[in-house]
Amino acid sequence: MSRFTFITLFREAIEPYLNTSMMLKAQKIGAAEFDFVDLREFGIGKHKSVDDTPYGGGDGMLLRCEPVFSAVESVLTEGAKVIMPTPAGEKWTQKRAQALAGISHTEISAKNLRESITKESELEKKPNEPNRHFIIICPHYEGYDERIMSMVNYPISVGNYVLTGGEIPALIIVDSIVRLLPGVLGGDSSAAIESFSDEKGEMIEFPQWTKPAEFRGMKVPEILLSGNHEKIARWRMEQMRKNMD
Amino acid sequence: MSRFTFITLFREAIEPYLNTSMMLKAQKIGAAEFDFVDLREFGIGKHKSVDDTPYGGGDGMLLRCEPVFSAVESVLTEGAKVIMPTPAGEKWTQKRAQALAGISHTEISAKNLRESITKESELEKKPNEPNRHFIIICPHYEGYDERIMSMVNYPISVGNYVLTGGEIPALIIVDSIVRLLPGVLGGDSSAAIESFSDEKGEMIEFPQWTKPAEFRGMKVPEILLSGNHEKIARWRMEQMRKNMD
Repeated sequence: MSRFTFITLFREAIEPYLNTSMMLKAQKIGAAEFDFVDLREFGIGKHKSVDDTPYGGGDGMLLRCEPVFSAVESVLTEGAKVIMPTPAGEKWTQKRAQALAGISHTEISAKNLRESITKESELEKKPNEPNRHFIIICPHYEGYDERIMSMVNYPISVGNYVLTGGEIPALIIVDSIVRLLPGVLGGDSSAAIESFSDEKGEMIEFPQWTKPAEFRGMKVPEILLSGNHEKIARWRMEQMRKNMD
Repeated sequence: MSRFTFITLFREAIEPYLNTSMMLKAQKIGAAEFDFVDLREFGIGKHKSVDDTPYGGGDGMLLRCEPVFSAVESVLTEGAKVIMPTPAGEKWTQKRAQALAGISHTEISAKNLRESITKESELEKKPNEPNRHFIIICPHYEGYDERIMSMVNYPISVGNYVLTGGEIPALIIVDSIVRLLPGVLGGDSSAAIESFSDEKGEMIEFPQWTKPAEFRGMKVPEILLSGNHEKIARWRMEQMRKNMD
Protein backbone atom coordinates (compact mmCIF):
# COMPACT_ATOMS: atom_id res chain seq x y z
CA MET A 1 0.00 0.00 0.00
CA SER A 2 1.30 3.42 -0.97
CA ARG A 3 -0.15 6.38 0.89
CA PHE A 4 -0.09 9.85 -0.67
CA THR A 5 -0.81 12.85 1.56
CA PHE A 6 -1.41 16.15 -0.23
CA ILE A 7 -0.72 19.38 1.67
CA THR A 8 -2.78 21.94 -0.21
CA LEU A 9 -5.06 24.97 -0.09
CA PHE A 10 -7.15 23.54 -2.93
CA ARG A 11 -8.22 20.01 -2.07
CA GLU A 12 -11.42 20.51 -4.07
CA ALA A 13 -9.35 21.15 -7.22
CA ILE A 14 -7.45 17.85 -7.14
CA GLU A 15 -9.56 15.32 -5.23
CA PRO A 16 -12.01 14.67 -8.12
CA TYR A 17 -9.14 13.59 -10.37
CA LEU A 18 -8.03 11.07 -7.74
CA ASN A 19 -11.56 9.66 -7.57
CA THR A 20 -11.76 8.98 -11.32
CA SER A 21 -10.58 6.23 -13.66
CA MET A 22 -7.25 4.55 -12.80
CA MET A 23 -6.63 6.53 -9.60
CA LEU A 24 -10.02 5.36 -8.33
CA LYS A 25 -9.17 1.80 -9.32
CA ALA A 26 -5.86 2.04 -7.46
CA GLN A 27 -7.78 2.93 -4.31
CA LYS A 28 -10.35 0.17 -4.82
CA ILE A 29 -7.72 -2.57 -5.17
CA GLY A 30 -5.83 -1.25 -2.17
CA ALA A 31 -2.70 -0.21 -4.09
CA ALA A 32 -2.94 3.47 -3.16
CA GLU A 33 -4.57 5.66 -0.54
CA PHE A 34 -4.98 9.43 -0.79
CA ASP A 35 -5.48 11.91 2.03
CA PHE A 36 -5.31 15.65 2.45
CA VAL A 37 -4.05 18.24 4.90
CA ASP A 38 -5.62 21.70 4.67
CA LEU A 39 -2.68 24.10 4.81
CA ARG A 40 -5.06 26.89 5.85
CA GLU A 41 -5.62 25.16 9.19
CA PHE A 42 -1.99 25.88 10.01
CA GLY A 43 -2.20 29.54 8.97
CA ILE A 44 -1.06 32.35 11.22
CA GLY A 45 -3.26 34.71 13.24
CA LYS A 46 -6.96 35.41 13.08
CA HIS A 47 -6.97 35.31 9.28
CA LYS A 48 -5.02 32.02 9.14
CA SER A 49 -2.57 33.67 6.81
CA VAL A 50 -0.15 31.37 4.95
CA ASP A 51 1.70 33.93 2.82
CA ASP A 52 3.49 37.26 3.04
CA THR A 53 5.56 39.71 0.96
CA PRO A 54 9.18 38.89 0.01
CA TYR A 55 12.12 40.35 1.94
CA GLY A 56 14.12 42.62 -0.36
CA GLY A 57 11.06 43.66 -2.34
CA GLY A 58 9.35 42.37 -5.44
CA ASP A 59 5.85 41.59 -6.55
CA GLY A 60 3.81 38.68 -5.37
CA MET A 61 3.30 36.79 -2.15
CA LEU A 62 5.44 33.95 -0.82
CA LEU A 63 4.31 30.90 1.09
CA ARG A 64 5.54 31.21 4.70
CA CYS A 65 7.58 28.43 6.25
CA GLU A 66 5.79 27.97 9.62
CA PRO A 67 2.42 26.73 8.26
CA VAL A 68 4.17 24.29 5.93
CA PHE A 69 6.43 22.90 8.68
CA SER A 70 3.43 22.47 10.99
CA ALA A 71 1.30 20.83 8.29
CA VAL A 72 4.01 18.35 7.31
CA GLU A 73 4.79 17.52 10.94
CA SER A 74 1.10 16.84 11.62
CA VAL A 75 1.18 13.80 9.28
CA LEU A 76 4.84 12.81 9.22
CA THR A 77 5.49 9.08 9.61
CA GLU A 78 8.79 7.22 9.87
CA GLY A 79 10.42 6.87 6.47
CA ALA A 80 7.92 9.20 4.80
CA LYS A 81 9.27 10.98 1.70
CA VAL A 82 8.48 14.68 1.40
CA ILE A 83 8.03 15.83 -2.19
CA MET A 84 7.57 19.41 -3.41
CA PRO A 85 7.11 20.60 -7.00
CA THR A 86 9.34 23.61 -7.74
CA PRO A 87 10.94 25.00 -10.93
CA ALA A 88 14.32 24.64 -9.16
CA GLY A 89 13.80 20.92 -8.54
CA GLU A 90 15.17 17.80 -10.18
CA LYS A 91 13.55 16.88 -13.48
CA TRP A 92 10.76 14.35 -13.06
CA THR A 93 11.35 11.39 -15.37
CA GLN A 94 9.87 7.96 -15.92
CA LYS A 95 13.00 6.51 -14.32
CA ARG A 96 12.33 8.51 -11.13
CA ALA A 97 8.67 7.46 -11.15
CA GLN A 98 9.77 3.82 -11.41
CA ALA A 99 12.25 4.25 -8.56
CA LEU A 100 9.60 5.70 -6.23
CA ALA A 101 7.12 3.00 -7.32
CA GLY A 102 9.75 0.42 -6.37
CA ILE A 103 10.15 -1.17 -9.81
CA SER A 104 13.25 -1.48 -11.91
CA HIS A 105 13.89 0.16 -15.25
CA THR A 106 13.00 -1.92 -18.33
CA GLU A 107 15.62 -1.91 -21.07
CA ILE A 108 14.30 -1.50 -24.57
CA SER A 109 14.85 -4.39 -26.98
CA ALA A 110 13.14 -6.15 -29.83
CA LYS A 111 12.78 -9.16 -27.51
CA ASN A 112 10.81 -7.13 -24.98
CA LEU A 113 8.64 -5.72 -27.74
CA ARG A 114 8.00 -9.17 -29.18
CA GLU A 115 7.14 -10.57 -25.77
CA SER A 116 4.69 -7.75 -25.33
CA ILE A 117 3.04 -8.60 -28.63
CA THR A 118 2.78 -12.29 -27.85
CA LYS A 119 1.99 -11.64 -24.19
CA GLU A 120 4.66 -14.05 -22.94
CA SER A 121 5.99 -11.60 -20.39
CA GLU A 122 4.71 -10.29 -17.10
CA LEU A 123 6.06 -7.47 -15.01
CA GLU A 124 7.76 -8.81 -11.95
CA LYS A 125 5.14 -9.06 -9.25
CA LYS A 126 5.86 -7.95 -5.72
CA PRO A 127 3.52 -9.98 -3.54
CA ASN A 128 4.60 -8.16 -0.41
CA GLU A 129 4.44 -4.54 -1.37
CA PRO A 130 6.06 -2.43 1.34
CA ASN A 131 4.07 0.36 2.93
CA ARG A 132 5.18 3.69 1.54
CA HIS A 133 4.17 7.18 2.56
CA PHE A 134 4.62 10.19 0.31
CA ILE A 135 3.83 13.71 1.55
CA ILE A 136 3.37 16.15 -1.32
CA ILE A 137 3.51 19.88 -0.58
CA CYS A 138 1.54 21.89 -3.16
CA PRO A 139 2.89 25.46 -3.10
CA HIS A 140 0.56 28.14 -4.38
CA TYR A 141 1.04 31.89 -4.79
CA GLU A 142 4.05 33.34 -6.59
CA GLY A 143 6.75 31.53 -4.64
CA TYR A 144 7.78 30.09 -1.31
CA ASP A 145 10.13 30.83 1.58
CA GLU A 146 13.43 29.11 0.85
CA ARG A 147 13.56 27.53 4.32
CA ILE A 148 10.73 25.18 3.33
CA MET A 149 13.30 23.35 1.16
CA SER A 150 15.11 22.17 4.30
CA MET A 151 12.34 19.62 4.98
CA VAL A 152 11.86 18.48 1.38
CA ASN A 153 13.48 15.17 0.33
CA TYR A 154 12.47 15.42 -3.32
CA PRO A 155 12.26 18.87 -4.92
CA ILE A 156 10.78 18.06 -8.32
CA SER A 157 10.39 19.98 -11.58
CA VAL A 158 7.82 18.47 -13.95
CA GLY A 159 8.89 20.69 -16.87
CA ASN A 160 10.18 24.04 -18.10
CA TYR A 161 7.01 26.05 -17.70
CA VAL A 162 5.31 28.10 -15.00
CA LEU A 163 1.96 27.17 -13.45
CA THR A 164 -0.35 28.95 -11.01
CA GLY A 165 0.38 26.38 -8.31
CA GLY A 166 1.77 23.01 -7.33
CA GLU A 167 -1.51 21.09 -7.51
CA ILE A 168 -1.18 19.91 -11.13
CA PRO A 169 2.52 18.95 -10.76
CA ALA A 170 1.51 17.01 -7.63
CA LEU A 171 -1.06 15.07 -9.67
CA ILE A 172 1.58 14.38 -12.35
CA ILE A 173 3.98 12.92 -9.82
CA VAL A 174 1.32 10.82 -8.08
CA ASP A 175 -0.37 9.58 -11.29
CA SER A 176 2.94 8.48 -12.80
CA ILE A 177 3.86 6.53 -9.65
CA VAL A 178 0.42 5.03 -8.96
CA ARG A 179 -0.08 3.61 -12.47
CA LEU A 180 3.11 1.56 -11.94
CA LEU A 181 1.91 -0.04 -8.71
CA PRO A 182 1.07 -3.75 -9.09
CA GLY A 183 -2.46 -4.40 -10.33
CA VAL A 184 -3.34 -0.84 -11.32
CA LEU A 185 -2.97 -1.22 -15.09
CA GLY A 186 -4.90 -3.99 -16.84
CA GLY A 187 -2.24 -5.51 -19.08
CA ASP A 188 1.03 -5.89 -17.20
CA SER A 189 3.24 -5.57 -20.24
CA SER A 190 1.64 -2.34 -21.40
CA ALA A 191 3.23 -0.66 -18.39
CA ALA A 192 6.54 -2.18 -19.42
CA ILE A 193 6.31 -1.06 -23.03
CA GLU A 194 5.18 2.47 -22.23
CA SER A 195 7.98 2.95 -19.79
CA PHE A 196 10.75 2.45 -22.33
CA SER A 197 13.16 5.31 -22.23
CA ASP A 198 16.72 5.78 -23.42
CA GLU A 199 19.81 6.45 -21.32
CA LYS A 200 18.95 10.16 -21.09
CA GLY A 201 15.45 9.40 -19.86
CA GLU A 202 13.85 10.55 -23.11
CA MET A 203 10.57 8.75 -23.72
CA ILE A 204 10.35 6.54 -26.75
CA GLU A 205 7.24 5.16 -28.39
CA PHE A 206 6.09 3.78 -31.70
CA PRO A 207 3.01 4.73 -33.73
CA GLN A 208 -0.02 2.45 -33.43
CA TRP A 209 -3.25 1.84 -35.30
CA THR A 210 -6.60 0.29 -34.46
CA LYS A 211 -9.85 -0.25 -36.42
CA PRO A 212 -10.96 0.68 -39.00
CA ALA A 213 -8.37 -0.52 -41.53
CA GLU A 214 -9.15 2.55 -43.65
CA PHE A 215 -10.51 5.94 -42.55
CA ARG A 216 -10.94 8.86 -44.96
CA GLY A 217 -8.34 7.37 -47.28
CA MET A 218 -5.82 6.79 -44.46
CA LYS A 219 -4.80 3.12 -44.27
CA VAL A 220 -3.19 1.02 -41.55
CA PRO A 221 0.38 -0.02 -42.59
CA GLU A 222 0.18 -3.46 -44.21
CA ILE A 223 2.92 -5.05 -42.13
CA LEU A 224 0.69 -4.75 -39.03
CA LEU A 225 -1.88 -6.98 -40.74
CA SER A 226 0.75 -9.64 -41.60
CA GLY A 227 0.53 -11.64 -38.37
CA ASN A 228 4.34 -12.04 -38.35
CA HIS A 229 5.29 -11.05 -34.78
CA GLU A 230 9.01 -11.13 -35.47
CA LYS A 231 8.69 -8.75 -38.43
CA ILE A 232 6.22 -6.51 -36.62
CA ALA A 233 8.52 -6.16 -33.61
CA ARG A 234 11.45 -5.27 -35.86
CA TRP A 235 9.34 -2.73 -37.80
CA ARG A 236 8.14 -1.13 -34.57
CA MET A 237 11.73 -0.77 -33.39
CA GLU A 238 12.50 1.11 -36.61
CA GLN A 239 9.48 3.36 -36.07
CA MET A 240 10.51 4.30 -32.53
CA ARG A 241 10.62 8.02 -32.07
CA LYS A 242 11.61 10.41 -29.38
CA ASN A 243 10.23 13.80 -28.53
CA MET A 244 10.18 15.99 -31.61
CA ASP A 245 12.86 18.32 -30.29
CA MET B 1 -11.17 36.19 -24.77
CA SER B 2 -9.47 32.80 -25.08
CA ARG B 3 -11.75 29.79 -25.34
CA PHE B 4 -10.51 26.34 -24.34
CA THR B 5 -12.55 23.30 -25.39
CA PHE B 6 -11.60 20.00 -23.75
CA ILE B 7 -12.42 16.77 -25.58
CA THR B 8 -12.40 14.19 -22.83
CA LEU B 9 -13.99 11.12 -21.29
CA PHE B 10 -13.40 12.53 -17.80
CA ARG B 11 -14.85 16.03 -17.57
CA GLU B 12 -15.56 15.47 -13.88
CA ALA B 13 -11.86 14.92 -13.20
CA ILE B 14 -10.68 18.24 -14.62
CA GLU B 15 -13.58 20.70 -14.38
CA PRO B 16 -13.18 21.33 -10.61
CA TYR B 17 -9.59 22.51 -11.13
CA LEU B 18 -10.79 25.01 -13.72
CA ASN B 19 -13.38 26.35 -11.27
CA THR B 20 -10.82 27.06 -8.53
CA SER B 21 -8.34 29.84 -7.76
CA MET B 22 -6.73 31.62 -10.74
CA MET B 23 -8.58 29.60 -13.41
CA LEU B 24 -11.86 30.68 -11.80
CA LYS B 25 -10.65 34.28 -11.71
CA ALA B 26 -9.70 34.09 -15.40
CA GLN B 27 -13.30 33.12 -16.18
CA LYS B 28 -14.75 35.82 -13.94
CA ILE B 29 -12.76 38.63 -15.57
CA GLY B 30 -13.60 37.31 -19.05
CA ALA B 31 -10.04 36.37 -19.98
CA ALA B 32 -10.79 32.67 -20.49
CA GLU B 33 -13.75 30.42 -21.14
CA PHE B 34 -13.78 26.65 -20.70
CA ASP B 35 -16.11 24.15 -22.29
CA PHE B 36 -16.22 20.40 -22.75
CA VAL B 37 -17.08 17.80 -25.36
CA ASP B 38 -17.91 14.33 -24.11
CA LEU B 39 -15.93 11.98 -26.34
CA ARG B 40 -18.25 9.14 -25.36
CA GLU B 41 -21.13 10.82 -27.24
CA PHE B 42 -19.20 10.18 -30.45
CA GLY B 43 -18.49 6.55 -29.60
CA ILE B 44 -19.30 3.73 -32.01
CA GLY B 45 -22.21 1.29 -31.83
CA LYS B 46 -24.61 0.50 -29.05
CA HIS B 47 -21.87 0.66 -26.41
CA LYS B 48 -20.50 3.99 -27.69
CA SER B 49 -17.08 2.41 -27.88
CA VAL B 50 -14.14 4.78 -28.34
CA ASP B 51 -11.26 2.30 -28.25
CA ASP B 52 -10.12 -1.00 -29.74
CA THR B 53 -7.12 -3.37 -29.82
CA PRO B 54 -3.97 -2.47 -31.79
CA TYR B 55 -3.31 -3.90 -35.26
CA GLY B 56 -0.23 -6.11 -35.14
CA GLY B 57 -0.87 -7.19 -31.55
CA GLY B 58 0.18 -5.90 -28.18
CA ASP B 59 -1.43 -5.17 -24.87
CA GLY B 60 -3.75 -2.32 -24.21
CA MET B 61 -6.49 -0.48 -26.01
CA LEU B 62 -6.05 2.38 -28.46
CA LEU B 63 -8.29 5.40 -28.93
CA ARG B 64 -10.05 5.07 -32.30
CA CYS B 65 -9.84 7.88 -34.82
CA GLU B 66 -13.51 8.27 -35.85
CA PRO B 67 -14.88 9.44 -32.44
CA VAL B 68 -12.03 11.95 -32.10
CA PHE B 69 -12.51 13.36 -35.61
CA SER B 70 -16.27 13.69 -35.02
CA ALA B 71 -15.79 15.31 -31.61
CA VAL B 72 -13.28 17.88 -32.88
CA GLU B 73 -15.39 18.67 -35.93
CA SER B 74 -18.45 19.26 -33.72
CA VAL B 75 -16.75 22.32 -32.14
CA LEU B 76 -14.22 23.39 -34.76
CA THR B 77 -14.14 27.15 -35.44
CA GLU B 78 -12.11 29.07 -38.02
CA GLY B 79 -8.53 29.49 -36.86
CA ALA B 80 -8.99 27.14 -33.91
CA LYS B 81 -5.79 25.41 -32.78
CA VAL B 82 -6.02 21.68 -32.02
CA ILE B 83 -3.69 20.55 -29.25
CA MET B 84 -3.03 16.98 -28.09
CA PRO B 85 -0.71 15.81 -25.32
CA THR B 86 1.43 12.88 -26.46
CA PRO B 87 4.88 11.55 -25.46
CA ALA B 88 5.92 11.96 -29.11
CA GLY B 89 5.00 15.65 -29.13
CA GLU B 90 7.07 18.82 -28.97
CA LYS B 91 8.34 19.74 -25.51
CA TRP B 92 6.04 22.20 -23.76
CA THR B 93 8.06 25.19 -22.55
CA GLN B 94 7.38 28.61 -21.08
CA LYS B 95 8.32 30.11 -24.44
CA ARG B 96 5.60 28.07 -26.17
CA ALA B 97 3.07 29.03 -23.47
CA GLN B 98 3.94 32.69 -24.06
CA ALA B 99 3.58 32.29 -27.82
CA LEU B 100 0.10 30.76 -27.52
CA ALA B 101 -0.87 33.42 -24.94
CA GLY B 102 0.20 36.04 -27.48
CA ILE B 103 2.91 37.67 -25.38
CA SER B 104 6.57 38.11 -26.19
CA HIS B 105 9.48 36.52 -24.35
CA THR B 106 11.01 38.63 -21.57
CA GLU B 107 14.79 38.72 -21.59
CA ILE B 108 16.45 38.30 -18.24
CA SER B 109 18.52 41.22 -16.94
CA ALA B 110 19.41 42.96 -13.70
CA LYS B 111 17.39 45.94 -14.96
CA ASN B 112 14.23 43.84 -15.30
CA LEU B 113 14.82 42.39 -11.86
CA ARG B 114 15.36 45.84 -10.34
CA GLU B 115 12.25 47.19 -12.02
CA SER B 116 10.32 44.31 -10.58
CA ILE B 117 11.56 45.16 -7.10
CA THR B 118 10.70 48.83 -7.41
CA LYS B 119 7.51 48.10 -9.36
CA GLU B 120 8.31 50.59 -12.09
CA SER B 121 7.42 48.17 -14.86
CA GLU B 122 4.18 46.84 -16.20
CA LEU B 123 3.70 44.02 -18.66
CA GLU B 124 2.55 45.37 -21.98
CA LYS B 125 -1.23 45.44 -21.93
CA LYS B 126 -3.24 44.34 -24.91
CA PRO B 127 -6.49 46.26 -24.70
CA ASN B 128 -7.96 44.48 -27.71
CA GLU B 129 -7.24 40.85 -27.02
CA PRO B 130 -8.02 38.73 -30.07
CA ASN B 131 -10.47 35.89 -29.74
CA ARG B 132 -8.63 32.59 -29.64
CA HIS B 133 -10.00 29.07 -29.63
CA PHE B 134 -7.98 26.09 -28.45
CA ILE B 135 -9.34 22.55 -28.74
CA ILE B 136 -7.52 20.13 -26.49
CA ILE B 137 -7.87 16.40 -27.11
CA CYS B 138 -7.30 14.36 -23.92
CA PRO B 139 -6.33 10.83 -24.96
CA HIS B 140 -6.94 8.12 -22.41
CA TYR B 141 -6.20 4.39 -22.50
CA GLU B 142 -2.81 3.06 -23.49
CA GLY B 143 -2.42 4.90 -26.76
CA TYR B 144 -4.18 6.30 -29.80
CA ASP B 145 -4.64 5.59 -33.48
CA GLU B 146 -1.89 7.39 -35.37
CA ARG B 147 -4.35 8.92 -37.84
CA ILE B 148 -5.62 11.23 -35.07
CA MET B 149 -2.35 13.14 -35.44
CA SER B 150 -3.40 14.31 -38.90
CA MET B 151 -5.85 16.79 -37.35
CA VAL B 152 -3.59 17.96 -34.51
CA ASN B 153 -1.77 21.31 -34.94
CA TYR B 154 0.17 21.07 -31.68
CA PRO B 155 1.28 17.62 -30.47
CA ILE B 156 2.70 18.45 -27.03
CA SER B 157 4.85 16.54 -24.55
CA VAL B 158 4.78 18.04 -21.04
CA GLY B 159 7.68 15.87 -19.83
CA ASN B 160 9.53 12.55 -19.97
CA TYR B 161 7.11 10.46 -17.96
CA VAL B 162 4.03 8.34 -18.60
CA LEU B 163 0.59 9.19 -17.21
CA THR B 164 -2.75 7.34 -17.24
CA GLY B 165 -4.26 9.91 -19.59
CA GLY B 166 -4.09 13.29 -21.23
CA GLU B 167 -6.25 15.15 -18.72
CA ILE B 168 -3.43 16.37 -16.45
CA PRO B 169 -1.18 17.40 -19.38
CA ALA B 170 -4.20 19.27 -20.79
CA LEU B 171 -4.52 21.18 -17.51
CA ILE B 172 -0.77 21.97 -17.57
CA ILE B 173 -0.99 23.46 -21.04
CA VAL B 174 -4.13 25.47 -20.28
CA ASP B 175 -2.98 26.71 -16.84
CA SER B 176 0.36 27.90 -18.18
CA ILE B 177 -1.33 29.85 -21.00
CA VAL B 178 -4.24 31.25 -18.96
CA ARG B 179 -2.06 32.69 -16.18
CA LEU B 180 -0.29 34.81 -18.83
CA LEU B 181 -3.51 36.36 -20.16
CA PRO B 182 -3.89 40.06 -19.25
CA GLY B 183 -5.42 40.65 -15.83
CA VAL B 184 -5.26 37.06 -14.55
CA LEU B 185 -2.27 37.49 -12.21
CA GLY B 186 -2.42 40.22 -9.60
CA GLY B 187 0.99 41.84 -9.94
CA ASP B 188 1.85 42.26 -13.59
CA SER B 189 5.60 42.03 -13.09
CA SER B 190 5.44 38.77 -11.18
CA ALA B 191 4.39 37.09 -14.43
CA ALA B 192 7.40 38.70 -16.11
CA ILE B 193 9.86 37.59 -13.43
CA GLU B 194 8.55 34.04 -13.19
CA SER B 195 8.72 33.57 -16.92
CA PHE B 196 12.45 34.16 -17.21
CA SER B 197 14.12 31.39 -19.06
CA ASP B 198 17.45 31.04 -20.81
CA GLU B 199 18.09 30.41 -24.50
CA LYS B 200 17.45 26.67 -24.08
CA GLY B 201 14.10 27.31 -22.42
CA GLU B 202 15.39 26.17 -19.02
CA MET B 203 13.52 27.89 -16.19
CA ILE B 204 15.53 30.13 -13.94
CA GLU B 205 14.56 31.45 -10.54
CA PHE B 206 16.17 32.86 -7.43
CA PRO B 207 15.55 31.85 -3.80
CA GLN B 208 13.21 34.07 -1.78
CA TRP B 209 12.32 34.62 1.88
CA THR B 210 9.38 36.09 3.77
CA LYS B 211 8.56 36.59 7.46
CA PRO B 212 9.69 35.63 10.05
CA ALA B 213 13.29 36.91 9.89
CA GLU B 214 14.35 33.83 11.88
CA PHE B 215 12.69 30.41 12.08
CA ARG B 216 14.19 27.49 14.01
CA GLY B 217 17.63 29.06 13.73
CA MET B 218 17.33 29.68 9.99
CA LYS B 219 17.80 33.35 9.14
CA VAL B 220 16.90 35.49 6.14
CA PRO B 221 20.09 36.62 4.27
CA GLU B 222 21.04 40.08 5.56
CA ILE B 223 21.37 41.70 2.16
CA LEU B 224 17.61 41.33 1.65
CA LEU B 225 17.03 43.50 4.72
CA SER B 226 19.41 46.24 3.43
CA GLY B 227 16.88 48.20 1.38
CA ASN B 228 19.46 48.68 -1.39
CA HIS B 229 17.54 47.69 -4.53
CA GLU B 230 20.60 47.87 -6.77
CA LYS B 231 22.60 45.50 -4.55
CA ILE B 232 19.62 43.18 -4.01
CA ALA B 233 19.00 42.87 -7.75
CA ARG B 234 22.67 42.06 -8.35
CA TRP B 235 22.70 39.49 -5.52
CA ARG B 236 19.57 37.83 -6.88
CA MET B 237 21.17 37.54 -10.31
CA GLU B 238 24.09 35.70 -8.67
CA GLN B 239 21.67 33.38 -6.87
CA MET B 240 19.82 32.43 -10.06
CA ARG B 241 19.61 28.71 -10.48
CA LYS B 242 18.39 26.31 -13.05
CA ASN B 243 16.91 22.88 -12.70
CA MET B 244 19.14 20.70 -10.59
CA ASP B 245 20.07 18.42 -13.44
